[in-house]
Amino acid sequence: MIQSIAIQGVKGSFHHIVAKQYFGDQVALNEYLSFDKTVQSLLDADTDAVVMALENSIAGSIIPNYALIDTHNLHIVGEQYLDIQHHLMALPNQSVNDIKEVYSHPMALLQCKTFFKKHAHIKLIEDKDTAEVAQRIQEQKLSGVAAIASSLAAELFELEILAESIQSIKQNETRFVIVKRTNSEIPEADINKASLKFELEHKRGSLAALLNVMSDCKLNLTKIQSLPKIETPWKYAFFIDVTFSNYEDYKKAKSIMNIMAEDFKVLGEYKNAKP
Amino acid sequence: MIQSIAIQGVKGSFHHIVAKQYFGDQVALNEYLSFDKTVQSLLDADTDAVVMALENSIAGSIIPNYALIDTHNLHIVGEQYLDIQHHLMALPNQSVNDIKEVYSHPMALLQCKTFFKKHAHIKLIEDKDTAEVAQRIQEQKLSGVAAIASSLAAELFELEILAESIQSIKQNETRFVIVKRTNSEIPEADINKASLKFELEHKRGSLAALLNVMSDCKLNLTKIQSLPKIETPWKYAFFIDVTFSNYEDYKKAKSIMNIMAEDFKVLGEYKNAKP
Repeated sequence: MIQSIAIQGVKGSFHHIVAKQYFGDQVALNEYLSFDKTVQSLLDADTDAVVMALENSIAGSIIPNYALIDTHNLHIVGEQYLDIQHHLMALPNQSVNDIKEVYSHPMALLQCKTFFKKHAHIKLIEDKDTAEVAQRIQEQKLSGVAAIASSLAAELFELEILAESIQSIKQNETRFVIVKRTNSEIPEADINKASLKFELEHKRGSLAALLNVMSDCKLNLTKIQSLPKIETPWKYAFFIDVTFSNYEDYKKAKSIMNIMAEDFKVLGEYKNAKP
Repeated sequence: MIQSIAIQGVKGSFHHIVAKQYFGDQVALNEYLSFDKTVQSLLDADTDAVVMALENSIAGSIIPNYALIDTHNLHIVGEQYLDIQHHLMALPNQSVNDIKEVYSHPMALLQCKTFFKKHAHIKLIEDKDTAEVAQRIQEQKLSGVAAIASSLAAELFELEILAESIQSIKQNETRFVIVKRTNSEIPEADINKASLKFELEHKRGSLAALLNVMSDCKLNLTKIQSLPKIETPWKYAFFIDVTFSNYEDYKKAKSIMNIMAEDFKVLGEYKNAKP
């Protein structure tokens, strides 16, 4: 049976690229204009999985997406990395000087602000999505208007790339996760990474004790992020990713951490995309 | 001598509120339209200190600002917390229905998207700042146009608040830091918090060993954040905040961490604003 995959954005978006890379072309793609809506579609069983950006090398963790996974008790079943490159694109036979307006997502506009400082004649207008603007330019044959989007978007909507990689920071690796309603679907032997969440009282040494357990059980930490719980002063939530070579080691650590930490929760067990 | 303080944004911005709370009213305020420019003014000795948002309870750490402090070897000399409340404001004697356009910073627009979904007749237009729009509305007597800004901005620019606290997530506590060219200016006895940065090889247990040192030296961890170094795979940078009651304890931990970690660096030593 063909899986249906929810992405934030439309065809040609970075989420679409990741969906293609992870699932191949034999999937039905459901397009939503917000992460909230992709998750709602998963909860309603309208889709089988969500592709979701979770952190990137410029801005760090996308905390609201962690919250979506956590609040709705969803599961990370896989991950994928993508190097985000923003290109300026428009209908063919125009130059950058012909462009009067650029519509794009506020984040994309922010990331390309240095480029647009050098092209001050272009008016920047906030839009809901990056690739959707590319689609609209083609459908409505909009001259003088450009989009900031992926090379896949340029290809799909037959636009010409006027300027390549216009984002200020050239290297922007983003980590995407595949989110489902149920936990891991691969055999234990293939699992070598896990995303965990737990809470700790603000007590000296409590995190060190937990990390000692992980280290003793041969887990490698690849990410750690504390988040103060605003509604509960002095209590902290931690989001942690670990990699391991033996599932039994991880299982042992898990059972100890379950006793030591409050609200210990496995957000997902999956295959490390960076082996 | 009056200190000159650089803020991102104009008078009435949240950075202005923090500057007032931290320094009082006897300062010269220098307004800049980006964090980069506030830092440049500090490097050029045009200003004595920068007020800079560093993390908030919704989005987590503002990684580019950490990078600004780190790259330019600046120092955190103080901190201040502020509960961010966005209000919709316009010239007096108008209602929300009279408003046709809202100009604001993309982040503010994003944070208030639920409110604007209910008021779909309002066009959202990206602007460089929040409070600057409030100022412009008053100066140019713009009817039918609203700003999203602080109550201080409404007060300064004599605008009427049409809707209070329109951001989707009602509690948004933001941590600001005071940044200077030189390290702490308060006596050691008054210092009870420090921001540290170090790097570690991706070796099992390396972070646990560091945290054990901190715990043994009676330091409390209030924040931890790992950031992979894109250009150096398997190497991680950690940003850590610790609190302590005895500067000598901290000094001991510091000298041990300096040996154990690579590129150990004190970003700042200051007084905890949440005692």
